Amino acid sequence: MNKLKIGIIGLGTVGTGVVKTLKNVDSVEIVKIAVKNINKPRGVELSQGILTDNPYDIINNPDIDVVVELIGGVEPAWEYISASIKNGKHIVTANKELLAKKGEELFNLAEEHNRVCLYEAAIAGGIPIIMPIKTILAGNKINKIQAILNGTTNYILTKMDANGASYEDVLKEAQELGYAETDPTGDVEGYDAAYKITTLATIAFKQRIKIENVYREGISKVRKEDMKEASELGYKIKLIANASIDDNGNADVRVHPMLVSQKTMLAHIDYVTNAVAMSGHPIGNIVLSGPGAGEFPTASSVVGDILAIQAEFGKTDYMLPMMRCHHSAKANPVNIDDTFNKYYISITAPNAIGVIAKIGTICANKNISLASIMQKEVLENNTANITVITEKCQERLIKEVVNELDNCTVNSLIRVAEG
Amino acid sequence: MNKLKIGIIGLGTVGTGVVKTLKNVDSVEIVKIAVKNINKPRGVELSQGILTDNPYDIINNPDIDVVVELIGGVEPAWEYISASIKNGKHIVTANKELLAKKGEELFNLAEEHNRVCLYEAAIAGGIPIIMPIKTILAGNKINKIQAILNGTTNYILTKMDANGASYEDVLKEAQELGYAETDPTGDVEGYDAAYKITTLATIAFKQRIKIENVYREGISKVRKEDMKEASELGYKIKLIANASIDDNGNADVRVHPMLVSQKTMLAHIDYVTNAVAMSGHPIGNIVLSGPGAGEFPTASSVVGDILAIQAEFGKTDYMLPMMRCHHSAKANPVNIDDTFNKYYISITAPNAIGVIAKIGTICANKNISLASIMQKEVLENNTANITVITEKCQERLIKEVVNELDNCTVNSLIRVAEG
Repeated sequence: MNKLKIGIIGLGTVGTGVVKTLKNVDSVEIVKIAVKNINKPRGVELSQGILTDNPYDIINNPDIDVVVELIGGVEPAWEYISASIKNGKHIVTANKELLAKKGEELFNLAEEHNRVCLYEAAIAGGIPIIMPIKTILAGNKINKIQAILNGTTNYILTKMDANGASYEDVLKEAQELGYAETDPTGDVEGYDAAYKITTLATIAFKQRIKIENVYREGISKVRKEDMKEASELGYKIKLIANASIDDNGNADVRVHPMLVSQKTMLAHIDYVTNAVAMSGHPIGNIVLSGPGAGEFPTASSVVGDILAIQAEFGKTDYMLPMMRCHHSAKANPVNIDDTFNKYYISITAPNAIGVIAKIGTICANKNISLASIMQKEVLENNTANITVITEKCQERLIKEVVNELDNCTVNSLIRVAEG
Repeated sequence: MNKLKIGIIGLGTVGTGVVKTLKNVDSVEIVKIAVKNINKPRGVELSQGILTDNPYDIINNPDIDVVVELIGGVEPAWEYISASIKNGKHIVTANKELLAKKGEELFNLAEEHNRVCLYEAAIAGGIPIIMPIKTILAGNKINKIQAILNGTTNYILTKMDANGASYEDVLKEAQELGYAETDPTGDVEGYDAAYKITTLATIAFKQRIKIENVYREGISKVRKEDMKEASELGYKIKLIANASIDDNGNADVRVHPMLVSQKTMLAHIDYVTNAVAMSGHPIGNIVLSGPGAGEFPTASSVVGDILAIQAEFGKTDYMLPMMRCHHSAKANPVNIDDTFNKYYISITAPNAIGVIAKIGTICANKNISLASIMQKEVLENNTANITVITEKCQERLIKEVVNELDNCTVNSLIRVAEG
């Protein structure tokens, strides 16, 4: 058998997992690994001379068939990947940010040079999702995705729920345990999940989604009181990456916290686990869950992509028709203000008397139905905490409601998932 | 584009779903459909002259590239499939019984004739599982599967749990609703799930599992009292298809009811939904869930397989290396008596006094630790109901325990899933 020759750029956690995993794969040979510092000790045994601090030793190496990019971020990853494609290499990457920001350019360049770029590891870590969409689910028209795509935020929300703890306390603990970074912004403000859903929706809907059209809200404003209320009402609060598309190509893609019913699978996806729920025709609803990150799960996906290229390599000039990224058109973005959602609203009212009536009137005037309204005991200072769950209504109107509740404090406004 | 030309044998529920779904797929042409009765009205619009009552109009048709077998059962399906392969056709099938009983012959024949047989629809309906194992998970060594593979039994168990109803009552209702057949044996006694786990374990472990080595126990003895006890102890009772393999190729493959912790995903797979939990390295644990049967979900998998063949068709002589069924060796079967499990035992003891001590002594003499033992109120006739959960012990020993509880009635003995 002709071995597939690969070069790896980046030997961090995922790169190390890939190298370890490929030790048991005879059909693939690692020719070179580019790192920043070739003298740094590594957690894996490496052949003499395999390391280089010059990525162009890989990019310009005519022996290398596939470049595996595992450094992340837009630059210099994009420089390396685009140069590699121009040099005739296939690409395997785990770089969700690059895919979200440069995906269109990247796949056009790959197509132009008759090369493929596979990226199973970039979305939901080890969960098989991209390849299944391109292959066994190819006969489907997928029109809805609800997913938990960020392990850090899911860990924080799970811990807040389990321990009745505040966001700040759990974040600190997560940082100490290494589940959250020192600057957690990328995770907790939803950027990471937004990158992932952008690419996932593009491939599932076969329509290009632009990252700048993806609405994004993080978890830093979720209060422990919201977790408790949600739980009592039969929900959990999760950071959900949503994407839906209608028959006219109007795509509503967004990341924000949501109340999800405890009757759904997503409510039971805890800690760093990820999950993707998808609906379409003819498949119906499926949920795929598993480890969303980590050395080995991510390596599983990177190695799966490498083996997919290896299996077809050299057979024909135009390989891997099902592995290319096809999107026939650009989706029309839907503004968040135009979307319809159910809402959870937590309100502190200054005076218990009449406040329920006031909330009811404001909503009724806008034709917003209430699914439930709950007032607990009146507090010492004669304020009352009130929790409202609305029926489906337009985001624009619910923002007006919040504005009109002028002498109340709206503690939280969180969207509620259907079903 | 060259259209892929297919013939379909069987136009029942799944066949009809496939024909409907392929109406939106330009790259595939249905040349012929073989049915028993060409005059029977069909739930889908068909081209004039497309039906035949002679499957050999498909098998011997030189224009047809792929034969889609959707009649089920061993014969005449095996006759049609083997003749088709010999005539140079690729095969797509949803036939779990044939795969379990004739898989080895079938894949050898396909290999010999350089053809592939794809069967995503045969295992877990619409859930993408076979293709992902062969492609994106190819770098993994999968060593454990726990799955809910039969919708009928899962429906019955879910209903028994939700309504506190007996097996007999729910079965009757399921039969009325069409979820269970008039003769429900194939489902309720675990044959269907056994067929599926045989093939799933073979492909996941890359070792041939023989159906005659798969231990099988159905759900007809599960009592409503067991459901209640299990629920109180934090479990659900599910019909679980288990498969595990050790590094020496010893494979323990079986289907039986199990108590599964409510903390696991499988406990939340309700009604006709199916799920497959798999563990391996480097992936870790993943759970894939979705519709296990039905016209459209199953059609999704059949069409996915057809499109996978279509994507590669005619490119090279030896197509689809990742889509072939590879198993390097035959697994060594493990006898159920040699396996280690946790057990739930429901006992009715004639005399409350001393019975706990007796159970404890019998178990202690065999070095079996008890995780919990619970005696509820003593009944009017001075009998007592006692529920025991053991720690892990050998099946052989637990059978001895049951025998030695000679003046008690052992109502139920059900294995308990770990974790």
